[in-house]
Amino acid sequence: MRYSELFISTLKEDPAEAELISHKLMVRSGMIRKLATGIYSYLPVGLKVIKKVENIIREEMNAGGAQEVLLPVLSPAQLWQESGRWALYGEELMRLKDRHQRDFCLGPTHEEVITDLVRQQVRSYRQLPVNLYQIQTKFRDEIRPRFGLMRGREFIMKDGYSFDRDEKGVEVTYQKMYQAYSRIFQRCGLRFKAVEADTGTIGGNFSHEFMVLASSGEEEVVSCRQCSYAVNADKAECRPPQTEPPAFPYAREEAHTPGLKSVPDVAVFLNKPVTVILKTLIIQADNEIILVLLRGDHELHPEKLRKHLNCHEIALADEETVRRVTKAPVGFASPVGIDIHKVIADLTVETMGNFVCGANVEDYHLTDVNWGRDFHIDQFVDIRRVSTQDTCPLCGSGLEINRGIEVGHIFKLGTKYSKMLNATYLDESGQSQIIVMGCYGIGVGRTVAAAIEQNHDQNGIIWPQAIAPYQVLLLPLDVQDKNVLTLVENLYTDLKAAGVEVLLDDREERPGAKFKDADLLGIPLRVNIGARDLAKNQVEIKIRRSGEIFKLVPDDVKNKLMELLGNLS
Amino acid sequence: MRYSELFISTLKEDPAEAELISHKLMVRSGMIRKLATGIYSYLPVGLKVIKKVENIIREEMNAGGAQEVLLPVLSPAQLWQESGRWALYGEELMRLKDRHQRDFCLGPTHEEVITDLVRQQVRSYRQLPVNLYQIQTKFRDEIRPRFGLMRGREFIMKDGYSFDRDEKGVEVTYQKMYQAYSRIFQRCGLRFKAVEADTGTIGGNFSHEFMVLASSGEEEVVSCRQCSYAVNADKAECRPPQTEPPAFPYAREEAHTPGLKSVPDVAVFLNKPVTVILKTLIIQADNEIILVLLRGDHELHPEKLRKHLNCHEIALADEETVRRVTKAPVGFASPVGIDIHKVIADLTVETMGNFVCGANVEDYHLTDVNWGRDFHIDQFVDIRRVSTQDTCPLCGSGLEINRGIEVGHIFKLGTKYSKMLNATYLDESGQSQIIVMGCYGIGVGRTVAAAIEQNHDQNGIIWPQAIAPYQVLLLPLDVQDKNVLTLVENLYTDLKAAGVEVLLDDREERPGAKFKDADLLGIPLRVNIGARDLAKNQVEIKIRRSGEIFKLVPDDVKNKLMELLGNLS
Repeated sequence: MRYSELFISTLKEDPAEAELISHKLMVRSGMIRKLATGIYSYLPVGLKVIKKVENIIREEMNAGGAQEVLLPVLSPAQLWQESGRWALYGEELMRLKDRHQRDFCLGPTHEEVITDLVRQQVRSYRQLPVNLYQIQTKFRDEIRPRFGLMRGREFIMKDGYSFDRDEKGVEVTYQKMYQAYSRIFQRCGLRFKAVEADTGTIGGNFSHEFMVLASSGEEEVVSCRQCSYAVNADKAECRPPQTEPPAFPYAREEAHTPGLKSVPDVAVFLNKPVTVILKTLIIQADNEIILVLLRGDHELHPEKLRKHLNCHEIALADEETVRRVTKAPVGFASPVGIDIHKVIADLTVETMGNFVCGANVEDYHLTDVNWGRDFHIDQFVDIRRVSTQDTCPLCGSGLEINRGIEVGHIFKLGTKYSKMLNATYLDESGQSQIIVMGCYGIGVGRTVAAAIEQNHDQNGIIWPQAIAPYQVLLLPLDVQDKNVLTLVENLYTDLKAAGVEVLLDDREERPGAKFKDADLLGIPLRVNIGARDLAKNQVEIKIRRSGEIFKLVPDDVKNKLMELLGNLS
Repeated sequence: MRYSELFISTLKEDPAEAELISHKLMVRSGMIRKLATGIYSYLPVGLKVIKKVENIIREEMNAGGAQEVLLPVLSPAQLWQESGRWALYGEELMRLKDRHQRDFCLGPTHEEVITDLVRQQVRSYRQLPVNLYQIQTKFRDEIRPRFGLMRGREFIMKDGYSFDRDEKGVEVTYQKMYQAYSRIFQRCGLRFKAVEADTGTIGGNFSHEFMVLASSGEEEVVSCRQCSYAVNADKAECRPPQTEPPAFPYAREEAHTPGLKSVPDVAVFLNKPVTVILKTLIIQADNEIILVLLRGDHELHPEKLRKHLNCHEIALADEETVRRVTKAPVGFASPVGIDIHKVIADLTVETMGNFVCGANVEDYHLTDVNWGRDFHIDQFVDIRRVSTQDTCPLCGSGLEINRGIEVGHIFKLGTKYSKMLNATYLDESGQSQIIVMGCYGIGVGRTVAAAIEQNHDQNGIIWPQAIAPYQVLLLPLDVQDKNVLTLVENLYTDLKAAGVEVLLDDREERPGAKFKDADLLGIPLRVNIGARDLAKNQVEIKIRRSGEIFKLVPDDVKNKLMELLGNLS
């Protein structure tokens, strides 16, 4: 493709409403344009990337035994009433009436429609398993659409649904999909983790989120550096404490700590490690005030606590409440002699003794405090945020913590929908059985956005080769120079003939402007062809990701490009 | 693909609501399933065919210089208000409100959205021409959805829009699209005609409908057997009459024609050719009664007459009216001595003389009648249906008349939308100019349906090779026989490795049932492998279209298949 003919216009400025780098870069590089809030048009370069991801998904889903279908966008209310979701789904479900005043919605997901299709087609166990997927535009009227393609109201999704005879069957299908998903994100050139999304009470884990690792991710992923352990931070377990509390409690004392409100300050002042400081938090859990205790170097994971308490909201109590219950300003709370009845401590606190905590008196802390003797604890619970100081609960190796973007989710649905919609089959003995389902989603646009979050620098996108819109950018510096033109045109023809996707920047722009656009667009390999270089029989290849530059004689350029394309990721 | 794993179930019975053969066969062969009126799910086999057509479209559109984009389904009302179509479009436009009560519609076509996109991106003449297309699901709430994919409420369409500097530019683009469309339907293996849809008052024709020829088609296409003349029947022109009226009018006489009301009956009775009988029609045109005259062997084309009169409706007058104005029963109307003021005759009537017509008296006709002398004619107009007796108005060769299904339409839009939405560019001299547009549509699902209308027999579909879901069907007659199985599996592996799309019917069904499904599915080549044949070292290849059978030794099967695939259409 010649740049002069390509329908693209790059922008120098970030769009005002964009917060995420992927959103900024997709708009600036002319991949997408906003039509309305959360609704985007895909321009040629953007659509090329989308199609590459779609094709990788398609190939791997097919290889995993799934078959592609295409279900309607318009979904009759009736099916959603059957499943109960017509009433349950809130304003996110976009609804409309047809000319006969019949109710429809725009499919945000397709469990109902596919289950209806399968229940009509499948009669016998011989027809199972069935695994169907589609790549389709979906609709969700998000209350706060944002981040470009990351959370839109109209978006492209691969959704798949499997139908098996029984639990054993769905588990086999689930494993195939797990493998397919792993290959998909690998082939897209992404660093990702398959994260356990639900620990599953009966036999194994059958819900995984596929997270692309990027610092801007909304999710926090804890994973082992050695084994396959990988979980969402709010599910990350801590290894049970390995130490015992000290055998001999000392006598409790009071220490004057003027103006020292934070754990590190107190530790430094008293010349103690932070691990012998007890952190006391006054927590508002819905309408209740509770006391939460953690080791000084640990942090509360509010979601873990919320789940344990089974309440709606968790927050630090406000200053007024702290003053009322501790009779002291914020920073000196203590479990000793406080009038709060529910006291929850993190598991690690069980191993602590002779520790330091607040005194419920301004500018004072207590030392050599011991739980049991000095105050009561109701429950020891795993409520802290796992840190890289922790070790893997499975194998004991070191942990790493990354931020991630959820791009895929696989899930054993069981009989939730098949029961409600009465999707059954006749088994070998002629008995009617309920079909067991799984579901498998990938956000296609979100995968593209996540790829940019993970692969960019201050100058623009750095596409992984497999999903780059073009593999090679030919950049003539002097489009008027005859030798430059001849070489560029020959290379363009040769590379295209070799099946390479080439963009030729034939615009009469300053080299600087072309370089800027080249970096923004992020095509893996760039060939700079200038008149001065050429006079010295020299051409430059630059790798976008590493910045590495090769200077070659013109005759070697094509071979070098082919070699680099074979090795690049 | 193994049949036993394919998500397909064929039906023996036609679906009750299906009228068209394509609708029946697509449902029976398990390509589509209805979700709601005019709304279909595409099952794996159906989607495979759809994707093949889409890919052919994509390749030829790209080769023609168009670039693929994807515009949103949800379209804000605002843009449609700007173009005036929010009010103009009736109930066919599916409308909804988002959670903030903002109005949207589901795109039935995308002139507004694409014009909005282009007006934002294009500033200078240097950025033109631009030619963009998308392959997308569209929505039209048809008052009477029917014929399966032929006229649905949710359907897949390729819609394209071009943007040029001026008339000259759009004409170049138009020609490229004309060529691309011709290649698309050729490559799909369809017999089609590009039909002039508008004779265009200024310089040439810039609206063509692409019609797939099939007897079930809703449209009638008149085309020349020699030159490129091809038009919709209601636009087909007749060659101006080549003969003169007789120089010597005879004296008019009355003939007793008891009970003879039709032209052929009168001609036989009076021993005259039908070409000297004048057909007199009493026509109700809106609220007016007019007299219409045609040569006995010619037929009125109501649409031509309606257009000429510029009225809403044309119908034969009812019996009561005929009796009132002719004072005779139906069958004896005459222009001689009738009390109707407006008399329109077909062009051919101008060449008639000494002809026979009714007498406005029961059981009587007049002979040797002459217009001018015996009655008055207001206008001679081309109002008759062209017949295969006529010759091409361009070259004089013979004409043929076919029924057709409109699958594509290309159209020079001019500045209709660009003016209303103010899509302009700056020309070389810095003057603001309005962009000139063209638009180009293909019904993807309709193309598939039309392919079936054109390619089927009483047993099922006969796919053109390029859009067949599979190219080869391997049909083992005895799936328990070890030799059969070994050969079939080897062929399956070999053919797949050679890039052939193979369906292996591995079901334990009677051969008869498999043959039925094979004919229904319409895969171009079938290999029958039976134990008895194999014992004689023999295998059978059958061509679905011709029914031709080749008996070969097993070793030759693969090569023969490859050879046949190279030659088949």
